[in-house]
Amino acid sequence: MRNTAAIEHADTLVQEEKWHELRQLIGGWPEPEIADLLFELPAAKRAILFRLLPHNTSSEVFAFLEPELQNRLLEDLTVEETRRLVTNLAPDDRIHFLEDLPGEAVQKLLNLLPPEELWKTRQLLGYPEESVGRLMTPDYVAVRSHWSVAEALHHIRVKGQKAETIATIYVMENRWQFVDAVPLESFVLAHPDARVEELLTREGVFLSPLADREEAVRMITRYDVFSIPVVDARNVLLGVVTADDIFDVAEEEATEDFQKGVAVTPLKSSYREASLLELFNKRFPWLLALIGVNLLSSTVIAAYSGLLEAAIALTFFMPLLLGTGGNTGSQAATLVVRALSTDDLDLSDWMRAIGKELFVGCVLGAAMGLCTSLLGFWRGDWHLALAVALSMAAIVVWANLMGAVLPFVLMRFKMDPAVASSPLITSVSDVTGLVIYFWIARAVMEF
Amino acid sequence: MRNTAAIEHADTLVQEEKWHELRQLIGGWPEPEIADLLFELPAAKRAILFRLLPHNTSSEVFAFLEPELQNRLLEDLTVEETRRLVTNLAPDDRIHFLEDLPGEAVQKLLNLLPPEELWKTRQLLGYPEESVGRLMTPDYVAVRSHWSVAEALHHIRVKGQKAETIATIYVMENRWQFVDAVPLESFVLAHPDARVEELLTREGVFLSPLADREEAVRMITRYDVFSIPVVDARNVLLGVVTADDIFDVAEEEATEDFQKGVAVTPLKSSYREASLLELFNKRFPWLLALIGVNLLSSTVIAAYSGLLEAAIALTFFMPLLLGTGGNTGSQAATLVVRALSTDDLDLSDWMRAIGKELFVGCVLGAAMGLCTSLLGFWRGDWHLALAVALSMAAIVVWANLMGAVLPFVLMRFKMDPAVASSPLITSVSDVTGLVIYFWIARAVMEF
Repeated sequence: MRNTAAIEHADTLVQEEKWHELRQLIGGWPEPEIADLLFELPAAKRAILFRLLPHNTSSEVFAFLEPELQNRLLEDLTVEETRRLVTNLAPDDRIHFLEDLPGEAVQKLLNLLPPEELWKTRQLLGYPEESVGRLMTPDYVAVRSHWSVAEALHHIRVKGQKAETIATIYVMENRWQFVDAVPLESFVLAHPDARVEELLTREGVFLSPLADREEAVRMITRYDVFSIPVVDARNVLLGVVTADDIFDVAEEEATEDFQKGVAVTPLKSSYREASLLELFNKRFPWLLALIGVNLLSSTVIAAYSGLLEAAIALTFFMPLLLGTGGNTGSQAATLVVRALSTDDLDLSDWMRAIGKELFVGCVLGAAMGLCTSLLGFWRGDWHLALAVALSMAAIVVWANLMGAVLPFVLMRFKMDPAVASSPLITSVSDVTGLVIYFWIARAVMEF
Repeated sequence: MRNTAAIEHADTLVQEEKWHELRQLIGGWPEPEIADLLFELPAAKRAILFRLLPHNTSSEVFAFLEPELQNRLLEDLTVEETRRLVTNLAPDDRIHFLEDLPGEAVQKLLNLLPPEELWKTRQLLGYPEESVGRLMTPDYVAVRSHWSVAEALHHIRVKGQKAETIATIYVMENRWQFVDAVPLESFVLAHPDARVEELLTREGVFLSPLADREEAVRMITRYDVFSIPVVDARNVLLGVVTADDIFDVAEEEATEDFQKGVAVTPLKSSYREASLLELFNKRFPWLLALIGVNLLSSTVIAAYSGLLEAAIALTFFMPLLLGTGGNTGSQAATLVVRALSTDDLDLSDWMRAIGKELFVGCVLGAAMGLCTSLLGFWRGDWHLALAVALSMAAIVVWANLMGAVLPFVLMRFKMDPAVASSPLITSVSDVTGLVIYFWIARAVMEF
């Protein structure tokens, strides 16, 4: 965003330690850009610049920093500075930050909070990880349904100065009963004498604090809203989840699915931040486990080594057949997994989706088999051509079917369909592909 | 959301053709749920229910339907009904709908629009596909910077009744010069006598209409805003892009990356809607192209068939070595591709990222080599153990490096890094893996 000249200017000011000029320069910058500037500074200068920021700005900038940098910055601040910083963080940003700290450090920081903030934070921390409860902020503004719009707007003006967001106003009956979420726009557009209850649409879109955060992503994509109320079983409003946090969650969840899709345990932080040890730990166990499956392939080859020795031309086609099987299976599995995770398909659609893939697989198999038969003629005779063409067709149909079925089976047993990763599908399709190939080849050769 | 009892009740009412009761029942339902109900109805009843909906609701419900269903519904409506429907659609939803229609049908529908709507739509349609210009809505409310907050709120109240969103208000100087985007909240919270210019933060977050829509996704994740102004080179405000549309774009872009990641040309519609022909067309060419790469593997095997015949035990380890190479390469490529597409890494980070992967690859290679040597001893002697261990280590290091480098190379040459798909990486690592394996095996055997 910011043009390069401005960034270079800022860099020069840092080097020359002209702090107050720098403060003036970045005064109007959006917080994420100040966070970027901090990220690039040497540690010593970072703390100086951070201290120069106005209090509100510094808390917002802090929320945009990567967890590791947040920790390093905290080490350089005094207890009083830390207290001010953590108190000024919005409750949901605070949770995000506390989640990445070890338990002791969390306790130490919680002790710095004033009682009211402590209560909010403790309450949010009680919900399971990856739950909606962890995402919600209790900083919302609520009005009563029997008020007039003018009364409500007055209340919003008074309470809104401290709230994280007033883009949506929450309407209550009695003291705690949640009724509906109404956009601020409706209050502005309504006649001041109208009653708040006239603005209600009672569409009833809300979440439980125990719901998975993916549920919040699904709702916000589905209902095109900018925040969702979080309500307990007795219909008491506990907090609200805002679109900006859910946007980040959606991106994180997609990244996790990409990683699962190639047999990597999801990283805890960004790739940039991930340590070498973490990268190793999240990848090695899967590579090792998949060797187990690959060993089965080896065993199949060993069992048919007589056949291979007799017709070494058969080895020529192995990479072709197994490669295509793995690719086809990965295609089908990824299409189905992604459709399931974006609610484009659900469990009840299994027959339709598998039927579709069975058909597409047969056509793909026929087409690939035909192409491969030409290669068979080229390297051998019609026996070989027939053997590889039939094998190709059978392997493609089988791998495609397996790729389409496995995600549904995983989902049926309450497992994450994303575990149907390309490496797993490829490895399993190798084993079965070899069995199919050798079995068909032997049958055709003996014919 | 809606409980099952309500849905069953609605189904019964449809079957018994009790339309007015049904209309009453679904009166308070959110539009996406009415869209779902329509989706499940038989075609004949769909048009009846759709006609019963209030005009505003029917346009909103229409925007939530899948393109195919939109077309089928249009066929059942009269010209007048169609005109009303298309006119009532928000401009950005209308574009979304027109994009999926053949050119002739678009012209026919455009002719139905009143001149003002036609102008808006034509203007939006002029921007390239996947550009921000296609996403923006011109239905926003703008105020002048020299007005008082009270004047501005009055203007918002008058103009806001027709606008798609007033959650953010756009501040202009003179007649057309865009100054800043200010959330409605600021107007509500400010003193009525304050000047609009006092509310400005001039953070300067905006987009060009020609920018790629992914840029809008990046901005909204980065700046945590709910809409972004679209401004031309002369600083004239052309429209605004809202978070709900960008959310959908982000999901579509992630889906496209998942599909590219397994060598499938991105589908035009959802998986549920994709025809069998489309699925075949988007998958077959890639499978065929990859056979080209697999053929190289076959050629390598053919070239070394003498070695294989002499030591058939070598074939035993082929699936193990090639499988692990492909898996390692896919892991590295996907980690890097996803980090690049979420701005976690950018092109300038190539040295750091490749250095990281080189190190992780070496450790993974050493660990996997060690494990494989045990298998070598089990199936043969120390010659074999040494050959397979060295091959495993070399293949893992090489495949990992290739997986990490390829996305950066693609990006450097302005290609989509997501093309570095698992199937491509797996196939290329097969060829090179075989060369490495046979070369090392021969050297060790002759030793």
